[in-house]
Amino acid sequence: MLRYDVGMLDGFLTRGEFDSIKEEIAAASAMLRDGTGRGNDFIGWRDLPAVFDREEYARIRDTARRIREQSGILLVIGIGGSYLGSRAVLELLRGELHNEMGGLKVYFTGNSLSPGDMEDILRLCDSSDVSVNVISKSGTTTEPAIAFRIFRDYLIKRYGEEGSRERIYATTDRTGGTLRKLSGEHGYETFVIPGDVGGRFSVLTPVGLLPLAAAGIDTDALLSGAEDMRKVSCDDDTLVNPSNRYAAVRNLMLRTGKSVEILICFEPRFRMMGEWYKQLFGESEGKEHTGLFPSTCVFTSDLHSMGQFCQDGTRIIFETLVKFAQVGSGMTVHPEEDDFDGLNYLAGKSIHDINTIASDATMSAHTEGGVPCSVIECEKLDEYNTGELIYFLERACAVSGYTLGVNPFDQKGVEAYKRNMFALLDKPGYEEDKKRLLEKK
Amino acid sequence: MLRYDVGMLDGFLTRGEFDSIKEEIAAASAMLRDGTGRGNDFIGWRDLPAVFDREEYARIRDTARRIREQSGILLVIGIGGSYLGSRAVLELLRGELHNEMGGLKVYFTGNSLSPGDMEDILRLCDSSDVSVNVISKSGTTTEPAIAFRIFRDYLIKRYGEEGSRERIYATTDRTGGTLRKLSGEHGYETFVIPGDVGGRFSVLTPVGLLPLAAAGIDTDALLSGAEDMRKVSCDDDTLVNPSNRYAAVRNLMLRTGKSVEILICFEPRFRMMGEWYKQLFGESEGKEHTGLFPSTCVFTSDLHSMGQFCQDGTRIIFETLVKFAQVGSGMTVHPEEDDFDGLNYLAGKSIHDINTIASDATMSAHTEGGVPCSVIECEKLDEYNTGELIYFLERACAVSGYTLGVNPFDQKGVEAYKRNMFALLDKPGYEEDKKRLLEKK
Repeated sequence: MLRYDVGMLDGFLTRGEFDSIKEEIAAASAMLRDGTGRGNDFIGWRDLPAVFDREEYARIRDTARRIREQSGILLVIGIGGSYLGSRAVLELLRGELHNEMGGLKVYFTGNSLSPGDMEDILRLCDSSDVSVNVISKSGTTTEPAIAFRIFRDYLIKRYGEEGSRERIYATTDRTGGTLRKLSGEHGYETFVIPGDVGGRFSVLTPVGLLPLAAAGIDTDALLSGAEDMRKVSCDDDTLVNPSNRYAAVRNLMLRTGKSVEILICFEPRFRMMGEWYKQLFGESEGKEHTGLFPSTCVFTSDLHSMGQFCQDGTRIIFETLVKFAQVGSGMTVHPEEDDFDGLNYLAGKSIHDINTIASDATMSAHTEGGVPCSVIECEKLDEYNTGELIYFLERACAVSGYTLGVNPFDQKGVEAYKRNMFALLDKPGYEEDKKRLLEKK
Repeated sequence: MLRYDVGMLDGFLTRGEFDSIKEEIAAASAMLRDGTGRGNDFIGWRDLPAVFDREEYARIRDTARRIREQSGILLVIGIGGSYLGSRAVLELLRGELHNEMGGLKVYFTGNSLSPGDMEDILRLCDSSDVSVNVISKSGTTTEPAIAFRIFRDYLIKRYGEEGSRERIYATTDRTGGTLRKLSGEHGYETFVIPGDVGGRFSVLTPVGLLPLAAAGIDTDALLSGAEDMRKVSCDDDTLVNPSNRYAAVRNLMLRTGKSVEILICFEPRFRMMGEWYKQLFGESEGKEHTGLFPSTCVFTSDLHSMGQFCQDGTRIIFETLVKFAQVGSGMTVHPEEDDFDGLNYLAGKSIHDINTIASDATMSAHTEGGVPCSVIECEKLDEYNTGELIYFLERACAVSGYTLGVNPFDQKGVEAYKRNMFALLDKPGYEEDKKRLLEKK
C-alpha cells in the first residue's frame, strides 16, 4: 500500500502545527465525502473506481484489441486533461521511448498549435496503418479541433469515407457538442466523458483508459489500485488518512512562506506524471491569487541543473518525493580489472539500489540545507501502484483545495486567453473583445 | 537580429525603476567585459564564438562525418551541462521525434541512475551500429561513469577491443582526469572541454558541437549567430544592450516580489531549451538563499494545465516569452463543406499564424491579469537564431548574477548530495560522512 511519510519534516513542522490544521482538514475531507463543498457537481471522479460503467469498460477493452489489430499507429488527439493523464501513465509504465520498443505506437497530437509537430506526425503516419482517438467534451476546443480536421482529412484520403469511419474513435460528451453530433452522423464508435468529471480528473474514465488499453497497459490493475486507495481514504477524515496528511502538509507549507512545491522522482519516465500533477494541482488551486506553484524535477538528472537552487537558492521551496521501492530491472555495475574509473566500489550493486541511495542522500542533503521534504512511497513501479498514486493525488488535491478555501473544480482563468484569441482570430461573436484589444494598443 | 521587447511591462516597471538599476547593470556588464568579477576564471564562454580552436573544429566536422558513416546510432553519455545544451538544440531544430524521422539517431544516456532507461537504450542498440561520445571533465561523475562502463563493455563485446576503440569519442579535460588517461591508453579520439568554461556554458564547445554536427546540425550557422550576438553585446554596458536589459528586468522583478520566472515558448520542441535555461539560470543564481526560481511552460499546451495558475494564482510569477517570427511550415487550416466543428472562420489561415495570434492573445490576457511579461523575439527558428539566443541568455545570466551579487560561475551546492551519496555507497574516503549520517538517524 502507498505510504505518505512526513518523518523528514521534523524541525520544519511541529506537532502543534499539525494539530492546528487538523480540524480544517477534517472539515474539507468531510465536504468531499458528503458532496457539500464548492464545485460538488464535479466530484464524479471520487467514486469512479467503484462505480464505473462495466459495459462501456468491456467495450473499451474490445476496441483496444481492434485498434491493435487494424493499426500500427494510434493518434490520440486531445489537450490538457484529455491527453496528460494517458500519456503520463503510458510513459511511466513503458518508458519515454515506448514508441521505439515495438508494439502499437501512440502519438499524442492536437495539444499545441505547432505546425512542425503536426507535420512530423503526418510523415510518420505513412509508415503504418493509423487509427485516431479524438478526445474532446465539446469538439470545438481549438487545438484538438484543428488537429482532428487535419488527421480526419488524412484518413479519408487514405482509406476513403467508409474506411475512415472504422478508424475514428471519439471520446466525448454523452449527448451534447459537435463531436457527439458528428459521431452520430458518421457512425464513429464513441465513449463517454462523464459530465461530473473535469478534464484533469479524467484519466480513469474512457479519456485515459482507451489509449492505455490500446497500448497494452493492464487497466484492470490500474483501476484496482485506485479502488483500494479509495477504500482506505474515502471515510477517514483524520490525518492518519495519507491524502489528508499530504493536504495538511501542503497548506502548512504555504502558510509558512513556501510558495513553490517541487514534485520529485528519480525515474526519468515519471516526467509526464509531473506534467499531469502540475495540471491537477495548478489548475485546482491556482486561483483567487493563491495556491502553491507546482513544479517538478527528475533527479539525479536535475541535481546537475536545479540541484544548486534546491540546496542553496531562495527559501521558497519544499519538496515532495515520489519513491518506488521496486523498479523492474536487476541491472548491476560490473567490476573492471583495472578499475579505470574508480567505480569498483560499486561493483555488484544494482543500479536501482544505487539510485535509491542517491535518493536518500539527496533528501537528507536538502533537509540539512533547510528545504523541507516529505515522501510518497509506492511499493512498485507497476499498474496497480500507479492507480493508487493517481487516486491519492486526486483526493489530496480536492482536500488541499478546500482547505485553501477555493473551488478546486473550476478553471475560470483558462478562458481569458481564449476570449482574446477568438477576438484576434475574428471568430464571429467576439467583435467587442477585438475592439477592446485594439483600443489598448 | 534578436530583439528583447519590454513594451508590455508598462504598468509593472516604471522608467524610474529602470533608471534606478542602470548603474548596477553597467557595473556588472563592465565586470564581465573586464574580467574583474567573481568567478572570472570561468568566463571563457564569453569570447568562444570568436576565438574557438579552428583546428579542433575541423576535426569535429570530420569526426561527425565518420560517425554518420560508421553508425546509425550515436549514444551521448553525459549529465547536466554535458548533455542539456546539445539535446536542447537538437530537439529545437529537428523536433522531439527526430530519432524517428530518419538519419543518425542520437540517444542521450548516463544522465540518471534509472536502470530501465539504460536497458531500453541497450535494447535499441542492437538495431544498428553504435558509436559513443562520452562527455565528462573528470571521468568520475557517477551517472555518466556507470553508463560508460556499461556501454563501453557493450561495444567491446560487440566489436572487440580494437573495434570498440574506433567507436568511442571522449570529450574531456585537456590534460587531467581518468577519462583523459583512459583515452590515452586506448587511443580514443578526444576533444577538449576548455578549463575556463563551466558545464552549463559549454554548448558551443566540443561538448555540444560534436553531437550536433553528427546529427547534421549546421554548427557554422550556430556559431555565427552567437558571434554576431557577442559583437553587439560585448562592449555596450547600457540598457540598450538587450542582454543587459533582460538582466535588469529579472533583478527588478525579484526586488518587487516576483520570485518565479516562467520562460515560455509556443513550440513544444523548445521544451529541452527550457531545461537548459533552468540549469543556466538556476545553477548560476540559486545560491546564498537568493535567485529567481526558473520555470518553463510550453503554450498553448500548458495553457490547459498551468494557464489557470498564470492567469489567477499566487502573484509571485513573471513571464518571459521566446517568440519565433518564422517557423518552417506553411501548413494551413482547410475549409470543410459542412463546417462541422465551426472552424471555417480559420480556413486558409496558416497554423503558424494562428499560433502567433494565440501567443499575442495569451500575453495580453496575462498582462491584464496582473502578470508582467516581456518578449525575446527571434527572427526564425533556425541554427543562426538559436546561436544568437544561446549567447544572449548566457550573457544575460552572467550580468544578472553579478547584479544579484553572487558568483554566477560556481555551484558549491551541488556537492552536498554527492558527499552524502558517496558516504552511503561506502566509497573509500567518506567514512566520516557516513558516521554523521547514521548518527542523525
